[in-house]
This record gives sequence, C-alpha cells and structure tokens, in this order.
Amino acid sequence: MIQQIQITLPPFKRGYHLVTRELESKLPTLPSAGIAHFFIMHTSAALTLNENADPSVRIDFETFMNKLIPDGDKAFIHRDEGSDDMSAHLKSSILGANITIPIVDGRLHLGTWQGIYLCEFRNYGGSRKIFVTIIGE
Amino acid sequence: MIQQIQITLPPFKRGYHLVTRELESKLPTLPSAGIAHFFIMHTSAALTLNENADPSVRIDFETFMNKLIPDGDKAFIHRDEGSDDMSAHLKSSILGANITIPIVDGRLHLGTWQGIYLCEFRNYGGSRKIFVTIIGE
Amino acid sequence: MIQQIQITLPPFKRGYHLVTRELESKLPTLPSAGIAHFFIMHTSAALTLNENADPSVRIDFETFMNKLIPDGDKAFIHRDEGSDDMSAHLKSSILGANITIPIVDGRLHLGTWQGIYLCEFRNYGGSRKIFVTIIGE
Repeated sequence: MIQQIQITLPPFKRGYHLVTRELESKLPTLPSAGIAHFFIMHTSAALTLNENADPSVRIDFETFMNKLIPDGDKAFIHRDEGSDDMSAHLKSSILGANITIPIVDGRLHLGTWQGIYLCEFRNYGGSRKIFVTIIGE
Repeated sequence: MIQQIQITLPPFKRGYHLVTRELESKLPTLPSAGIAHFFIMHTSAALTLNENADPSVRIDFETFMNKLIPDGDKAFIHRDEGSDDMSAHLKSSILGANITIPIVDGRLHLGTWQGIYLCEFRNYGGSRKIFVTIIGE
Repeated sequence: MIQQIQITLPPFKRGYHLVTRELESKLPTLPSAGIAHFFIMHTSAALTLNENADPSVRIDFETFMNKLIPDGDKAFIHRDEGSDDMSAHLKSSILGANITIPIVDGRLHLGTWQGIYLCEFRNYGGSRKIFVTIIGE
C-alpha cells in the first residue's frame, strides 16, 4: 500500500529545471490507483508544476521571481549565509516544498502540458533530496 | 479505500470562482475518514482555499494578482501564446495546482469560512479538468 | 490506517512562528510509514515549511510579505473586517493552507533545517485550528 523512496538529484544551477523524467525513472512500480507525494527536504529550493514544453517559461520564472524577491534586499536581517539565502527561503515558501500527483494505471497522471520543476534558488545549492511517498492499491 | 474521478468544469471567465458546491455535487459517496486530493490538470489555472462569503474577496484577488504579475510584462520572453499566458503560468505556481482537504464523517471538512476557488488566469481558458483522488476508510 | 486529530493552537501574535514541537507533541503514535496532512481551517492564516534555526528568517518573512501585500491597499474593496483582512486572505492563498509531510519510522521526516511555521496574518487572529490526518501502515 505504501512505498517510500529518497531520490537525490545532482546539483542543478540556479533556476527552474524540468525533472519529471528523472524522477519517474527512479520510482518503483506504481500502483494502479493512488497518489505520489514529492517532498523536497530543503528550505532554499522548491517543487512546482508548470509547462513542460517551451523552455522560455522556465527562464521567465527565474527573471520574474528574482524581480519579485530580490537577492540581498536591504530590508532583510538574515544575511549571514549570503545575499541569495533569504530570497531563497521566501521563494521556497511561496512556490512550496511539496506536491501531490495522482497515480492512474501505474503512471503519474499529469495534464498534457504539466511537468515537475525543481526550483533551485541558491547560486550553489548542491544536490537536493526529494522524498517520495506513494500510497495506492 | 481509493476512489478517483475526473471532473470537467465548464468554462469560467477570467477570475476567481467559488466552486465548492459544484465539486461536492460530483463526488462519489465519501468515506468516514480520509483525505480528498484535488488536482487541476493545467498550467494556467489554479486551485486555492479562501473565503466563501463576501464575493469582493474574489474581485480583490483578481485585482491584486494582476498588479503583482502583470500580463505582457516586457521582461517575459515566452510570448507566443498571448499576453495573458506567461502571467498565468506564474500565478498557477504561486497559488498552486493542488489542494488536499480532510474528510470527516463523509464530508469535506472545511473551516466555516473556507471554500474552494477555481482560479482562471486566461482570458479564454475553456473548460478545466480537475482530477480527484479520495483516500479513506 | 487513518488517524485524525484536531489541534487548537493558542493565539499567536501577527507573524511567523515555529510550531513543529508543539504540533508533534499533540500527535498520536505515528505509523512506521505514511504521510501527515496538516490543514489550517482558516482563510487569514497559513502553514508553511521553512528554516527552523535562525529566528531572523521569520522576522524577514513578516517584513517582506507586508511589503509585497500591504495592509489596506487602496485597490481593495473588501475592507469591512479591517485593513489587515484582505491582505491576510491573499497571504493565506500565496503561502497555502495545507502541507503534507512524510512519516518514516514513526516520526515526521523533515529535512535538517525544516520546521513548520504557523503564519498569523491578522493583528488579533485568536486561536487557530489545525486538522491533522495521518495515513500510514
């Protein structure tokens, strides 16, 4: 009924990265019906669902989110870990650390245009752990 | 233990729409305890929980989110699908494509003032598919 | 397989509060594998995951989110419940009302630096109900 697996993604550069296939390739055999919960175990990165086709969408995410939440904002008092740290924490909560996706017929049941983005907010974030829980029957 | 259903909502105009009753009316008999996972299969719309009473809240959502994430921002390079497309993608990830609601005694266990909003970010988004997974006993 | 509990948190002042231990202390014995779904039953507060160490992160959250979504924005038409009300609704949807956390070996499986924040957006929000559903085996 319940399967759990920790996936370690290699370091990605700052930005938004389509990781659907990489994650799917590491999942065990999925049940015929259920949910898959993806949980990133970090506070300066996020997981979100968005367009899986035109890469320019992912570039615009980086541009827009940097403008919305500037690195090194003068108002921040949490500064010890670098100018990209507090901005990363805010982006992580705004985009979210966890997504749940339905499973149908042994596959992630995504819409035609949906893919999973790893959102890397640090300049040098290193590898990231994603813990997956699958509930199904 | 697990039930799944795809609900197709008719086209809604751009904005924020209270769809709790419409969704509830399409659900199967719910278990006595569990969760309901609502997943919108699109990248230019979202689902969120917010106030179910005063409709002015939903108007203010539209006003505020349009100001926060303007259509046709000059910085966007993803422009081929119209000036409301990239802004819609950003709003979708910021508000989120999926919500999970507890089920108690065969009903969605929402707070007194909570309702489910369909957030339609496109000028002409068309009908939207919401895939529901119910886990319970 | 499924356990449910409603936790009532005492009033917290406006701001971001680390409540991981308080919530954990009120949970029943957790299963060896599964998920815990935390659902705040309000539309002017939120739950999010972020850094559990330096308290300045939580102060910066308050500063930044107040700048992003100002109380009493002239554009708001929903004003009857005070200048902190419509801003609270927007923050609630942007940060989110629900989080799901994996359970491993009878414990919440959080990253080293992750904690659960209660985000109180009202000046006088009062006590807040969090409904927890645990699914596991």
